[in-house]
Amino acid sequence: MGGHPYYPEDLQLPGYVPLFLSQSQIVGVYGVASVLVVTFIWFISGRCSRISSIDRILMCWWAFTGLTHLILEGYFVFSPNFYKLNSPFYLAEVWKEYSKGDSRYAARDSAVVTVEGITAVLEGPACLLAVYAIAARKPYNYTLQLAVCLGQLYGDIVYFVTAFLEGDKFSAGRYYYWAYFVLANSFWLVIPSIIAVRCWKKISQAFLMEKPKNS
Amino acid sequence: MGGHPYYPEDLQLPGYVPLFLSQSQIVGVYGVASVLVVTFIWFISGRCSRISSIDRILMCWWAFTGLTHLILEGYFVFSPNFYKLNSPFYLAEVWKEYSKGDSRYAARDSAVVTVEGITAVLEGPACLLAVYAIAARKPYNYTLQLAVCLGQLYGDIVYFVTAFLEGDKFSAGRYYYWAYFVLANSFWLVIPSIIAVRCWKKISQAFLMEKPKNS
Repeated sequence: MGGHPYYPEDLQLPGYVPLFLSQSQIVGVYGVASVLVVTFIWFISGRCSRISSIDRILMCWWAFTGLTHLILEGYFVFSPNFYKLNSPFYLAEVWKEYSKGDSRYAARDSAVVTVEGITAVLEGPACLLAVYAIAARKPYNYTLQLAVCLGQLYGDIVYFVTAFLEGDKFSAGRYYYWAYFVLANSFWLVIPSIIAVRCWKKISQAFLMEKPKNS
Repeated sequence: MGGHPYYPEDLQLPGYVPLFLSQSQIVGVYGVASVLVVTFIWFISGRCSRISSIDRILMCWWAFTGLTHLILEGYFVFSPNFYKLNSPFYLAEVWKEYSKGDSRYAARDSAVVTVEGITAVLEGPACLLAVYAIAARKPYNYTLQLAVCLGQLYGDIVYFVTAFLEGDKFSAGRYYYWAYFVLANSFWLVIPSIIAVRCWKKISQAFLMEKPKNS
Protein backbone atom coordinates (compact mmCIF):
# COMPACT_ATOMS: atom_id res chain seq x y z
CA MET A 1 0.00 0.00 0.00
CA GLY A 2 2.21 2.86 1.21
CA GLY A 3 5.30 1.39 -0.51
CA HIS A 4 7.09 1.03 2.82
CA PRO A 5 7.38 -1.70 5.50
CA TYR A 6 5.86 0.36 8.36
CA TYR A 7 2.55 0.39 10.20
CA PRO A 8 -0.07 1.76 10.01
CA GLU A 9 -0.07 0.89 6.30
CA ASP A 10 -1.81 4.12 5.29
CA LEU A 11 1.14 6.17 6.57
CA GLN A 12 2.29 8.40 3.72
CA LEU A 13 6.06 8.46 3.17
CA PRO A 14 6.59 9.82 -0.35
CA GLY A 15 10.09 9.16 -1.61
CA TYR A 16 10.76 6.25 0.73
CA VAL A 17 13.87 4.28 -0.26
CA PRO A 18 14.13 0.67 1.04
CA LEU A 19 16.89 -0.43 3.40
CA PHE A 20 20.32 -1.26 2.03
CA LEU A 21 21.69 -3.02 5.12
CA SER A 22 20.32 -6.08 6.92
CA GLN A 23 19.17 -6.08 10.52
CA SER A 24 22.24 -8.05 11.58
CA GLN A 25 24.57 -5.56 9.88
CA ILE A 26 22.85 -2.60 11.56
CA VAL A 27 22.73 -4.18 15.02
CA GLY A 28 26.23 -5.61 14.55
CA VAL A 29 27.86 -2.24 13.88
CA TYR A 30 26.12 -0.73 16.92
CA GLY A 31 27.16 -3.69 19.06
CA VAL A 32 30.80 -3.65 17.97
CA ALA A 33 31.07 0.15 18.30
CA SER A 34 29.53 -0.04 21.78
CA VAL A 35 31.93 -2.78 22.90
CA LEU A 36 34.86 -0.69 21.65
CA VAL A 37 33.65 2.41 23.54
CA VAL A 38 33.05 0.46 26.74
CA THR A 39 36.42 -1.32 26.52
CA PHE A 40 38.23 1.96 25.89
CA ILE A 41 36.57 3.72 28.84
CA TRP A 42 37.12 0.70 31.10
CA PHE A 43 40.88 0.74 30.48
CA ILE A 44 41.22 4.53 30.60
CA SER A 45 39.24 4.71 33.85
CA GLY A 46 41.55 2.10 35.39
CA ARG A 47 44.27 4.73 35.31
CA CYS A 48 42.27 7.07 37.61
CA SER A 49 43.55 6.74 41.14
CA ARG A 50 41.30 5.37 43.90
CA ILE A 51 38.31 4.78 41.63
CA SER A 52 35.82 2.02 42.47
CA SER A 53 34.69 -0.63 40.00
CA ILE A 54 31.16 0.71 40.23
CA ASP A 55 32.32 4.16 39.17
CA ARG A 56 34.27 2.63 36.29
CA ILE A 57 31.17 0.73 35.15
CA LEU A 58 29.16 3.96 35.42
CA MET A 59 31.73 5.80 33.31
CA CYS A 60 31.36 3.09 30.64
CA TRP A 61 27.57 3.41 30.73
CA TRP A 62 27.60 7.21 30.50
CA ALA A 63 30.03 7.13 27.57
CA PHE A 64 27.94 4.50 25.76
CA THR A 65 24.57 6.18 26.35
CA GLY A 66 25.97 9.68 25.74
CA LEU A 67 27.39 8.73 22.35
CA THR A 68 24.16 6.92 21.48
CA HIS A 69 22.20 10.08 22.32
CA LEU A 70 24.55 12.42 20.46
CA ILE A 71 25.27 10.41 17.33
CA LEU A 72 22.28 8.11 16.69
CA GLU A 73 19.53 10.23 18.19
CA GLY A 74 21.22 13.50 17.20
CA TYR A 75 21.21 12.38 13.57
CA PHE A 76 17.51 11.51 13.73
CA VAL A 77 16.51 14.86 15.24
CA PHE A 78 18.14 16.90 12.50
CA SER A 79 17.43 14.57 9.54
CA PRO A 80 13.69 14.63 8.77
CA ASN A 81 14.29 13.01 5.37
CA PHE A 82 16.36 10.04 6.52
CA TYR A 83 13.94 7.56 4.96
CA LYS A 84 14.46 9.08 1.49
CA LEU A 85 18.23 8.62 1.52
CA ASN A 86 19.31 6.84 -1.63
CA SER A 87 22.59 5.43 -0.31
CA PRO A 88 23.54 3.06 2.52
CA PHE A 89 24.38 5.72 5.13
CA TYR A 90 24.57 3.88 8.44
CA LEU A 91 22.70 6.38 10.66
CA ALA A 92 19.80 6.63 8.21
CA GLU A 93 19.66 2.84 8.01
CA VAL A 94 19.40 2.63 11.81
CA TRP A 95 16.23 4.75 11.82
CA LYS A 96 14.76 3.06 8.74
CA GLU A 97 15.12 -0.21 10.61
CA TYR A 98 13.98 1.10 13.99
CA SER A 99 10.85 2.62 12.43
CA LYS A 100 9.61 -0.95 12.00
CA GLY A 101 9.23 -0.97 15.76
CA ASP A 102 7.79 2.56 15.90
CA SER A 103 6.74 4.26 12.68
CA ARG A 104 6.39 7.58 14.50
CA TYR A 105 10.10 8.02 13.75
CA ALA A 106 9.55 7.93 10.00
CA ALA A 107 6.29 9.89 10.40
CA ARG A 108 8.13 12.56 12.42
CA ASP A 109 5.64 12.57 15.28
CA SER A 110 6.12 15.81 17.21
CA ALA A 111 6.30 14.18 20.66
CA VAL A 112 8.95 11.69 19.49
CA VAL A 113 11.01 14.43 17.80
CA THR A 114 10.76 16.61 20.92
CA VAL A 115 11.83 13.85 23.32
CA GLU A 116 14.67 12.83 21.01
CA GLY A 117 15.69 16.48 20.66
CA ILE A 118 15.94 16.92 24.44
CA THR A 119 17.81 13.62 24.68
CA ALA A 120 20.30 14.42 21.94
CA VAL A 121 20.90 18.12 22.60
CA LEU A 122 20.73 18.33 26.41
CA GLU A 123 21.26 14.82 27.76
CA GLY A 124 23.90 13.66 25.27
CA PRO A 125 26.50 16.26 26.29
CA ALA A 126 25.43 15.90 29.95
CA CYS A 127 26.24 12.15 29.80
CA LEU A 128 29.76 12.84 28.54
CA LEU A 129 30.16 15.47 31.26
CA ALA A 130 29.15 12.77 33.75
CA VAL A 131 32.04 10.56 32.55
CA TYR A 132 34.42 13.41 33.37
CA ALA A 133 32.62 14.35 36.62
CA ILE A 134 32.93 10.80 37.98
CA ALA A 135 36.62 10.55 37.04
CA ALA A 136 37.37 13.99 38.51
CA ARG A 137 35.24 13.33 41.63
CA LYS A 138 33.37 16.60 41.10
CA PRO A 139 31.01 17.56 43.95
CA TYR A 140 28.16 17.74 41.40
CA ASN A 141 28.75 14.28 39.94
CA TYR A 142 25.79 12.55 41.65
CA THR A 143 23.52 15.52 40.99
CA LEU A 144 24.41 15.45 37.30
CA GLN A 145 23.91 11.69 37.03
CA LEU A 146 20.55 11.95 38.82
CA ALA A 147 19.43 14.82 36.57
CA VAL A 148 20.25 12.89 33.38
CA CYS A 149 18.59 9.70 34.70
CA LEU A 150 15.40 11.59 35.53
CA GLY A 151 15.44 13.14 32.06
CA GLN A 152 15.86 9.72 30.45
CA LEU A 153 12.99 8.33 32.55
CA TYR A 154 10.72 11.30 31.79
CA GLY A 155 11.45 10.87 28.08
CA ASP A 156 10.66 7.15 28.25
CA ILE A 157 7.35 7.79 29.99
CA VAL A 158 6.33 10.37 27.36
CA TYR A 159 7.47 7.96 24.64
CA PHE A 160 5.49 4.97 25.89
CA VAL A 161 2.40 6.79 27.17
CA THR A 162 1.84 8.82 23.99
CA ALA A 163 2.08 5.58 21.94
CA PHE A 164 -0.42 3.93 24.29
CA LEU A 165 -2.85 6.87 24.14
CA GLU A 166 -2.75 6.79 20.34
CA GLY A 167 -3.64 3.10 20.21
CA ASP A 168 -0.22 1.40 20.19
CA LYS A 169 -0.46 0.90 16.45
CA PHE A 170 2.99 1.86 15.21
CA SER A 171 4.81 -1.49 15.04
CA ALA A 172 5.17 -3.70 11.97
CA GLY A 173 4.21 -6.85 13.87
CA ARG A 174 4.77 -8.50 17.23
CA TYR A 175 8.47 -9.18 16.73
CA TYR A 176 9.37 -5.54 16.07
CA TYR A 177 7.02 -4.40 18.82
CA TRP A 178 8.75 -6.50 21.47
CA ALA A 179 12.32 -6.39 20.17
CA TYR A 180 12.59 -2.71 19.21
CA PHE A 181 9.80 -0.79 20.93
CA VAL A 182 9.79 -2.65 24.26
CA LEU A 183 13.13 -4.44 24.76
CA ALA A 184 15.53 -1.87 23.28
CA ASN A 185 13.93 0.96 25.25
CA SER A 186 13.62 -1.00 28.47
CA PHE A 187 17.38 -0.67 29.10
CA TRP A 188 16.82 3.09 29.43
CA LEU A 189 14.07 2.47 31.96
CA VAL A 190 15.90 -0.05 34.14
CA ILE A 191 19.45 1.35 34.20
CA PRO A 192 18.56 5.01 34.85
CA SER A 193 16.19 3.86 37.63
CA ILE A 194 19.00 1.97 39.37
CA ILE A 195 21.48 4.85 38.98
CA ALA A 196 18.91 7.43 40.13
CA VAL A 197 18.22 5.50 43.34
CA ARG A 198 21.95 5.20 44.02
CA CYS A 199 22.57 8.92 43.45
CA TRP A 200 19.59 9.85 45.63
CA LYS A 201 21.03 7.79 48.49
CA LYS A 202 24.56 9.17 48.02
CA ILE A 203 23.28 12.74 48.19
CA SER A 204 21.23 12.04 51.31
CA GLN A 205 24.31 10.47 52.93
CA ALA A 206 26.32 13.61 52.18
CA PHE A 207 23.73 15.74 54.01
CA LEU A 208 23.69 13.32 56.95
CA MET A 209 27.50 13.51 57.17
CA GLU A 210 27.41 17.30 57.00
CA LYS A 211 25.19 17.69 60.05
CA PRO A 212 25.13 16.04 63.47
CA LYS A 213 22.50 13.30 63.58
CA ASN A 214 19.05 14.21 64.98
CA SER A 215 20.27 16.49 67.73
CA MET B 1 -17.86 26.71 12.24
CA GLY B 2 -17.04 24.09 14.90
CA GLY B 3 -19.55 25.60 17.37
CA HIS B 4 -16.76 26.37 19.85
CA PRO B 5 -14.44 29.33 20.51
CA TYR B 6 -11.16 27.43 19.87
CA TYR B 7 -8.58 27.34 17.10
CA PRO B 8 -8.05 25.80 14.64
CA GLU B 9 -11.69 26.34 13.70
CA ASP B 10 -12.03 22.93 12.06
CA LEU B 11 -11.36 21.20 15.39
CA GLN B 12 -14.24 18.81 16.03
CA LEU B 13 -15.68 18.94 19.56
CA PRO B 14 -19.13 17.32 19.35
CA GLY B 15 -21.24 18.10 22.40
CA TYR B 16 -19.32 21.24 23.35
CA VAL B 17 -21.18 23.32 25.96
CA PRO B 18 -20.22 27.03 26.22
CA LEU B 19 -18.66 28.51 29.35
CA PHE B 20 -20.87 29.43 32.30
CA LEU B 21 -18.30 31.54 34.19
CA SER B 22 -16.46 34.64 33.02
CA GLN B 23 -12.69 34.87 32.74
CA SER B 24 -12.51 37.13 35.81
CA GLN B 25 -14.57 34.67 37.87
CA ILE B 26 -12.32 31.75 36.86
CA VAL B 27 -9.05 33.60 37.41
CA GLY B 28 -10.44 35.22 40.57
CA VAL B 29 -11.26 31.91 42.27
CA TYR B 30 -7.80 30.55 41.41
CA GLY B 31 -6.17 33.74 42.67
CA VAL B 32 -8.10 33.84 45.96
CA ALA B 33 -7.58 30.12 46.61
CA SER B 34 -3.86 30.50 45.91
CA VAL B 35 -3.53 33.47 48.27
CA LEU B 36 -5.30 31.47 50.99
CA VAL B 37 -2.98 28.48 50.52
CA VAL B 38 0.14 30.64 50.53
CA THR B 39 -1.00 32.61 53.59
CA PHE B 40 -1.84 29.41 55.47
CA ILE B 41 1.55 27.81 54.70
CA TRP B 42 3.40 31.04 55.52
CA PHE B 43 1.91 31.20 59.01
CA ILE B 44 2.18 27.48 59.69
CA SER B 45 5.82 27.42 58.54
CA GLY B 46 6.58 30.31 60.93
CA ARG B 47 6.02 27.87 63.77
CA CYS B 48 8.86 25.61 62.57
CA SER B 49 11.97 26.31 64.58
CA ARG B 50 15.11 27.72 62.93
CA ILE B 51 13.59 27.95 59.47
CA SER B 52 14.82 30.60 57.02
CA SER B 53 12.51 32.95 55.14
CA ILE B 54 13.68 31.42 51.86
CA ASP B 55 12.60 27.97 53.04
CA ARG B 56 9.23 29.37 54.12
CA ILE B 57 8.74 30.96 50.69
CA LEU B 58 9.71 27.65 49.08
CA MET B 59 7.17 25.81 51.22
CA CYS B 60 4.49 28.25 50.02
CA TRP B 61 5.50 27.71 46.39
CA TRP B 62 5.53 23.91 46.69
CA ALA B 63 2.11 23.89 48.35
CA PHE B 64 0.68 26.22 45.68
CA THR B 65 2.17 24.37 42.70
CA GLY B 66 1.47 20.94 44.20
CA LEU B 67 -2.21 21.68 44.71
CA THR B 68 -2.40 23.20 41.21
CA HIS B 69 -0.90 20.00 39.78
CA LEU B 70 -3.10 17.68 41.82
CA ILE B 71 -6.44 19.46 41.62
CA LEU B 72 -6.50 21.50 38.39
CA GLU B 73 -4.24 19.34 36.25
CA GLY B 74 -5.39 16.12 37.92
CA TYR B 75 -8.99 16.93 36.98
CA PHE B 76 -8.00 17.55 33.35
CA VAL B 77 -6.07 14.29 33.02
CA PHE B 78 -8.99 12.13 34.13
CA SER B 79 -11.83 14.15 32.54
CA PRO B 80 -11.68 13.78 28.77
CA ASN B 81 -15.22 15.14 28.41
CA PHE B 82 -14.81 18.33 30.46
CA TYR B 83 -15.90 20.51 27.51
CA LYS B 84 -19.27 18.74 27.34
CA LEU B 85 -20.18 19.42 30.95
CA ASN B 86 -23.61 21.02 31.12
CA SER B 87 -23.21 22.72 34.51
CA PRO B 88 -20.86 25.38 35.88
CA PHE B 89 -18.36 23.02 37.53
CA TYR B 90 -15.32 25.15 38.33
CA LEU B 91 -12.56 22.73 37.23
CA ALA B 92 -14.23 22.09 33.87
CA GLU B 93 -14.64 25.83 33.37
CA VAL B 94 -10.90 26.33 34.00
CA TRP B 95 -10.01 24.03 31.11
CA LYS B 96 -12.73 25.35 28.82
CA GLU B 97 -11.24 28.80 29.34
CA TYR B 98 -7.59 27.70 29.13
CA SER B 99 -8.25 25.85 25.86
CA LYS B 100 -8.62 29.28 24.26
CA GLY B 101 -4.88 29.59 24.78
CA ASP B 102 -4.17 26.01 23.70
CA SER B 103 -6.93 23.98 22.07
CA ARG B 104 -4.85 20.80 22.43
CA TYR B 105 -6.44 20.54 25.89
CA ALA B 106 -9.95 20.28 24.46
CA ALA B 107 -8.66 18.15 21.57
CA ARG B 108 -6.96 15.78 24.04
CA ASP B 109 -3.59 15.86 22.30
CA SER B 110 -1.61 12.83 23.48
CA ALA B 111 1.58 14.75 24.33
CA VAL B 112 -0.37 17.30 26.41
CA VAL B 113 -2.31 14.56 28.23
CA THR B 114 0.92 12.65 28.92
CA VAL B 115 2.82 15.66 30.28
CA GLU B 116 -0.19 16.69 32.40
CA GLY B 117 -0.51 13.09 33.62
CA ILE B 118 3.11 12.98 34.79
CA THR B 119 2.68 16.41 36.37
CA ALA B 120 -0.52 15.54 38.21
CA VAL B 121 0.21 11.96 39.26
CA LEU B 122 3.95 12.06 40.00
CA GLU B 123 4.90 15.70 40.53
CA GLY B 124 1.79 16.83 42.42
CA PRO B 125 2.32 14.48 45.41
CA ALA B 126 6.10 15.08 45.19
CA CYS B 127 5.50 18.84 45.61
CA LEU B 128 3.50 18.27 48.79
CA LEU B 129 6.20 15.92 50.04
CA ALA B 130 8.68 18.76 49.41
CA VAL B 131 6.67 21.04 51.74
CA TYR B 132 7.09 18.43 54.47
CA ALA B 133 10.73 17.65 53.60
CA ILE B 134 11.74 21.31 53.91
CA ALA B 135 9.92 21.72 57.24
CA ALA B 136 11.39 18.48 58.61
CA ARG B 137 14.86 19.24 57.21
CA LYS B 138 15.03 15.85 55.55
CA PRO B 139 18.42 14.97 54.01
CA TYR B 140 16.66 14.40 50.68
CA ASN B 141 14.89 17.74 50.60
CA TYR B 142 17.12 19.41 47.99
CA THR B 143 17.21 16.25 45.88
CA LEU B 144 13.43 16.08 45.88
CA GLN B 145 13.04 19.76 45.02
CA LEU B 146 15.60 19.42 42.22
CA ALA B 147 13.87 16.32 40.83
CA VAL B 148 10.47 18.03 40.71
CA CYS B 149 11.92 21.19 39.15
CA LEU B 150 13.63 19.17 36.42
CA GLY B 151 10.35 17.34 35.77
CA GLN B 152 8.47 20.65 35.50
CA LEU B 153 11.10 22.01 33.11
CA TYR B 154 11.10 18.84 30.98
CA GLY B 155 7.31 19.01 30.78
CA ASP B 156 7.41 22.67 29.73
CA ILE B 157 9.94 21.96 26.99
CA VAL B 158 7.80 19.11 25.62
CA TYR B 159 4.73 21.35 25.89
CA PHE B 160 6.21 24.30 23.99
CA VAL B 161 8.33 22.40 21.45
CA THR B 162 5.50 20.06 20.34
CA ALA B 163 3.25 23.13 19.82
CA PHE B 164 6.01 24.81 17.81
CA LEU B 165 6.65 21.70 15.67
CA GLU B 166 2.93 21.48 14.88
CA GLY B 167 2.78 25.05 13.68
CA ASP B 168 1.83 26.98 16.84
CA LYS B 169 -1.78 27.15 15.68
CA PHE B 170 -3.74 26.34 18.84
CA SER B 171 -4.56 29.77 20.27
CA ALA B 172 -7.77 31.72 19.73
CA GLY B 173 -5.91 34.95 18.97
CA ARG B 174 -2.91 36.93 20.15
CA TYR B 175 -4.32 37.80 23.57
CA TYR B 176 -4.93 34.17 24.60
CA TYR B 177 -1.63 33.12 23.06
CA TRP B 178 0.39 35.55 25.17
CA ALA B 179 -1.72 35.56 28.34
CA TYR B 180 -2.46 31.84 28.68
CA PHE B 181 -0.01 29.89 26.55
CA VAL B 182 3.09 32.01 27.15
CA LEU B 183 2.66 34.06 30.34
CA ALA B 184 0.83 31.54 32.55
CA ASN B 185 3.31 28.78 31.71
CA SER B 186 6.37 30.99 31.99
CA PHE B 187 6.10 30.96 35.80
CA TRP B 188 6.79 27.21 35.64
CA LEU B 189 9.87 27.85 33.53
CA VAL B 190 11.37 30.67 35.60
CA ILE B 191 10.68 29.51 39.17
CA PRO B 192 11.77 25.86 38.77
CA SER B 193 14.95 27.08 37.02
CA ILE B 194 15.83 29.30 39.99
CA ILE B 195 15.05 26.56 42.54
CA ALA B 196 16.95 23.92 40.54
CA VAL B 197 20.11 26.06 40.46
CA ARG B 198 19.84 26.68 44.22
CA CYS B 199 19.39 22.96 44.99
CA TRP B 200 22.27 22.03 42.69
CA LYS B 201 24.57 24.42 44.58
CA LYS B 202 23.35 23.24 48.01
CA ILE B 203 24.06 19.60 47.11
CA SER B 204 27.53 20.45 45.79
CA GLN B 205 28.25 22.34 49.02
CA ALA B 206 27.25 19.29 51.06
CA PHE B 207 29.79 17.16 49.17
CA LEU B 208 32.48 19.80 49.60
CA MET B 209 31.79 19.90 53.37
CA GLU B 210 31.89 16.10 53.54
CA LYS B 211 35.40 15.82 52.13
CA PRO B 212 38.60 17.74 52.74
CA LYS B 213 39.17 20.28 49.97
CA ASN B 214 41.39 19.21 47.06
CA SER B 215 43.85 17.21 49.08
